[in-house]
Amino acid sequence: MSSSSHGDTAPVSTVVADANAAATAPDPRLVADLVTANHILYDQHVVDAFGHVSVRHDKRPDRFLLARSMAPALVTTADILEFDLDGNPLAAGGRPVYLERFIHSEIYRVRPDVVSIVHSHSHAIIPFGVVRSHKLRAIFHMSAFVGTETPIFEIRECVGDGSDLLIRDRELGAALAKSLGPKSVVLMRGHGVTVTAPTLPGAVYRGVYVDVNARLQLEAIGLGAVNYLTDQEGRAAATTNASQVGRAWDMWKMKVEGKL
Amino acid sequence: MSSSSHGDTAPVSTVVADANAAATAPDPRLVADLVTANHILYDQHVVDAFGHVSVRHDKRPDRFLLARSMAPALVTTADILEFDLDGNPLAAGGRPVYLERFIHSEIYRVRPDVVSIVHSHSHAIIPFGVVRSHKLRAIFHMSAFVGTETPIFEIRECVGDGSDLLIRDRELGAALAKSLGPKSVVLMRGHGVTVTAPTLPGAVYRGVYVDVNARLQLEAIGLGAVNYLTDQEGRAAATTNASQVGRAWDMWKMKVEGKL
Amino acid sequence: MSSSSHGDTAPVSTVVADANAAATAPDPRLVADLVTANHILYDQHVVDAFGHVSVRHDKRPDRFLLARSMAPALVTTADILEFDLDGNPLAAGGRPVYLERFIHSEIYRVRPDVVSIVHSHSHAIIPFGVVRSHKLRAIFHMSAFVGTETPIFEIRECVGDGSDLLIRDRELGAALAKSLGPKSVVLMRGHGVTVTAPTLPGAVYRGVYVDVNARLQLEAIGLGAVNYLTDQEGRAAATTNASQVGRAWDMWKMKVEGKL
Amino acid sequence: MSSSSHGDTAPVSTVVADANAAATAPDPRLVADLVTANHILYDQHVVDAFGHVSVRHDKRPDRFLLARSMAPALVTTADILEFDLDGNPLAAGGRPVYLERFIHSEIYRVRPDVVSIVHSHSHAIIPFGVVRSHKLRAIFHMSAFVGTETPIFEIRECVGDGSDLLIRDRELGAALAKSLGPKSVVLMRGHGVTVTAPTLPGAVYRGVYVDVNARLQLEAIGLGAVNYLTDQEGRAAATTNASQVGRAWDMWKMKVEGKL
Repeated sequence: MSSSSHGDTAPVSTVVADANAAATAPDPRLVADLVTANHILYDQHVVDAFGHVSVRHDKRPDRFLLARSMAPALVTTADILEFDLDGNPLAAGGRPVYLERFIHSEIYRVRPDVVSIVHSHSHAIIPFGVVRSHKLRAIFHMSAFVGTETPIFEIRECVGDGSDLLIRDRELGAALAKSLGPKSVVLMRGHGVTVTAPTLPGAVYRGVYVDVNARLQLEAIGLGAVNYLTDQEGRAAATTNASQVGRAWDMWKMKVEGKL
Repeated sequence: MSSSSHGDTAPVSTVVADANAAATAPDPRLVADLVTANHILYDQHVVDAFGHVSVRHDKRPDRFLLARSMAPALVTTADILEFDLDGNPLAAGGRPVYLERFIHSEIYRVRPDVVSIVHSHSHAIIPFGVVRSHKLRAIFHMSAFVGTETPIFEIRECVGDGSDLLIRDRELGAALAKSLGPKSVVLMRGHGVTVTAPTLPGAVYRGVYVDVNARLQLEAIGLGAVNYLTDQEGRAAATTNASQVGRAWDMWKMKVEGKL
Repeated sequence: MSSSSHGDTAPVSTVVADANAAATAPDPRLVADLVTANHILYDQHVVDAFGHVSVRHDKRPDRFLLARSMAPALVTTADILEFDLDGNPLAAGGRPVYLERFIHSEIYRVRPDVVSIVHSHSHAIIPFGVVRSHKLRAIFHMSAFVGTETPIFEIRECVGDGSDLLIRDRELGAALAKSLGPKSVVLMRGHGVTVTAPTLPGAVYRGVYVDVNARLQLEAIGLGAVNYLTDQEGRAAATTNASQVGRAWDMWKMKVEGKL
Repeated sequence: MSSSSHGDTAPVSTVVADANAAATAPDPRLVADLVTANHILYDQHVVDAFGHVSVRHDKRPDRFLLARSMAPALVTTADILEFDLDGNPLAAGGRPVYLERFIHSEIYRVRPDVVSIVHSHSHAIIPFGVVRSHKLRAIFHMSAFVGTETPIFEIRECVGDGSDLLIRDRELGAALAKSLGPKSVVLMRGHGVTVTAPTLPGAVYRGVYVDVNARLQLEAIGLGAVNYLTDQEGRAAATTNASQVGRAWDMWKMKVEGKL
């Protein structure tokens, strides 16, 4: 893996000029929503100074939007960058980019159904990535998208012992995407979680509720054997979840805008 | 179950005109209190963007008041709708209604003693609905209304596997009411809880303290065998709870009004 | 026990006129500190709408100060009442008094060393009052005053089954004081805790740190056998605690006054 | 141990005049950062009214900066004092000093690589200092600096039973430093934790993330056998942690300055 990059920031390695940039500029409302998504995830304690959210470009499926390397809480419109599916920023202009942008690029590459991705280190899910005794799975209807079994990405299977656990390049991003498979959630052992969704508000919703689900499981498992959602209940409730996302998003948006 | 309704919102199916609407309009103070109740439940973390509270109409026992389908934190007086016991809104005016209004309508139908109902997904109670090893029961005097045993509504017994766990129609609402029986609390497996009370402040109090009770049980059970309230203690303390509700309500109301 | 009192409030039964009231009025700074103590306990989540704090009258050891029956968060100077050791208010002027004032009066009666008392239902301590598997005892230096073993007041031993768990009269207050003995903390099964101290800030400190101690024990016990403070360490650290109270009080006071 | 000092404050015992004080005055930005560090640690719930953070003098490695004895939340520039490695303040001017300054002085004495030290009683780490069943060790990449095993300082091995657990003098400080050895974290049984770092922001980061790590371990251990970071992963991720500190510091600083 690259050793020249420090932390979660890498210098710009390639800049791809695009003469028709204006014609394919992302919808400003999508950019604004991505800024809001960053703030919501911080406000809902899904991310702290670390973690990120991206959304696929609305006009070009081979591009996605992601903030420059910074704390989500501080993201503004000017911080949103456009990337290609190799993880190259198109016009970073010197702004540092997230070292782990490959989490996003490689999932967008193999999952055309995914429109948005959240990567977090939210606290309740971490335990489920480091044990084999219990699987992260849907315990109540609001997190039905979690399904009946959540894959765990074990980085040692890709680069052996001694990594710093970060998804630093395309190879690791592709390995993570492979672990995710066709699902919505993949745990990352000793690191965090990555969730995907067909919409940006949906990814934020899932970032929040995968952590809620984990917290509820931690408590329930302490009581005894748990009666989880069945596969069928999970699918039915997941369909319902999709229509509930808007209400949560609207409220969370009002909250970060100081209107609640 | 109805598959045309998405999420927790259903289009208005029937509008019943009432020429004497003004004469039987609910007391404005009751409507104001219902708005406050919504805000308190959010402020006390009983509900998030989901969950709802209703109150029986003060002049017509065959009607009840419930906000339109929206996050409780954002409810205003203009959002309060009146419903009949079939779950039909009387004058929704195009405003979407909660898909799960049947939780309320069917309990009001069979429980003339119930004046107010809170439905929530508060976190501490969820585990008690998905295990059989421990029953949700009163652990301290402030939640004596919980009693010595809380029924769990298992939706599979009504509609089999594959539901989305929601109380989408009268049949499911009636099944839930049957589970509740003469009690104040019914857990809903993999979903949440519904509490009832003879007053609106009482229902809010119970929505808060059923969750506190659950949290205390989670901790105590982790320590060892628990010495719960006896049936007699529960009844005596529950009578006392009723007279304590006002103090909590007044403080919570001041808090959501920014006066505390 | 008295059945005419509802909830935690009782009507004034006796008013004792005192012609020299002004001469023996409590120090206004003590009254102001008692108001602050109420606010701190709420701000530190030791009390919610329920719970109370009192202080012995600075000029008359046979009197104590306690707010009228209300939520601690809302207490003002005008709400502070003076009581005798029978629990009678001296000049309630129609203001309702805490039904459980006997918690305070009966401890002041038999413990001349006690200057202040806090009664709370703080969440972490409740489990320790309802199990016999683990004793509430000092786990770290900041809560050394907890000692090596905390008595549990079991109300059934006084009035049998069927009480509402409240300390409603002198008999129950005396029984609680007997359970407390010469210690600083007594748990009340299925109810809460009462702590005492030789100063008002000290009682507030203990109200906060007995709950912190309980929380730490809940977590540590889940890990394994706990290495608690020895009896000697407890006594040495408790002496040290006394000199640390001021720093905590000053900070908490600034916080509730909006200066932090 | 000294019994004349009460609590965590000791009178000034020696004042060393320094005619060249201005020439060796610490960088004002370092002093400002130390004030900020105090506020961040309080805001992040690492310290409450107790706990402290110091930084080695930028011009004189035989000196360090530490606030006078007070709650970290209230520290201002005027409260920062300079100490020598014997724990003597250079110009306290009557201001009381932390009794436990020896935690800092003795570590600076034997660890030239350490630039900053945080001492806290943060809640999640306390359990790990009082049990032998589980070791505090790195569970996720953000707290890799914790390593694979954390030493526990047992004060009884130094001064036997009956201490108040405080590091009151040079002998105890030296014993603690010996327990710490070459590591970054040392637990203090029944007391708290001390973390060290090569930078001030790094020490604050470690004060926060050692507690996060402990909380995650508490939850994970409750689920089952934990797959911790290996020694190699820990070292690689710890190197990465160092480059991530700035982002967290900047955000926390904005937060305590009211800009977030």
